[in-house]
Amino acid sequence: MDINDPETLAEVTALFARYETALVTNDLATLDALFWNSPLVLRFGAGENLYGIDAIRAFRAARPAGDLARSLSNTVITCFGRDFATANTEFRRDGSGKAGRQSQSWARLPEGWRIVAAHVSFV
Amino acid sequence: MDINDPETLAEVTALFARYETALVTNDLATLDALFWNSPLVLRFGAGENLYGIDAIRAFRAARPAGDLARSLSNTVITCFGRDFATANTEFRRDGSGKAGRQSQSWARLPEGWRIVAAHVSFV
Repeated sequence: MDINDPETLAEVTALFARYETALVTNDLATLDALFWNSPLVLRFGAGENLYGIDAIRAFRAARPAGDLARSLSNTVITCFGRDFATANTEFRRDGSGKAGRQSQSWARLPEGWRIVAAHVSFV
Repeated sequence: MDINDPETLAEVTALFARYETALVTNDLATLDALFWNSPLVLRFGAGENLYGIDAIRAFRAARPAGDLARSLSNTVITCFGRDFATANTEFRRDGSGKAGRQSQSWARLPEGWRIVAAHVSFV
């Protein structure tokens, strides 16, 4: 299994950046498009455990859109073969100064690369 | 890409259970054997961000071995193809009652299935 095939790493790195931009601009359509449309997708957030795309969509639609701007550090994206990647980063919110970690698992599905599991927490 | 190929799912489910047993019995050798031996592996713990196998080993060797027993709920293991899987679960520690979430990404490497990234947090 190739680790960090350059072409795959470039693809996932671009998608990770696209997701980050969507997150800090509260671009719900892009956030939604990048998550796996499946009852099997899940997202552990700072204070909630969301199972399935419907729960994730409902949470996003309802969440406050303040304090979204943030800075990333120690971002590590690693590709395993050509169809799977992990993306992990630390972040600090610009407004509140709150620091946390974000983990994503990405898979290249027939419909394209999607986040299939995510976990966000504050330290 | 096959989702949840039965043979692959059975393999990862067994490894997940093996890891859980090692965790609650503080079996450091097994925990270590199931993590990717690489500077690229990472583990976000409840209060620490560990990069590379050396940092993970040092943390485990030093951590207190109390309050390890716990119960799992809502465990979701999903396989993408035959070489990658995500394993996510909620847990509650028997002693302290503290509740949290554990996320793992598993890859089938030449040396066998390994956890390549992990994130644990309390709610």
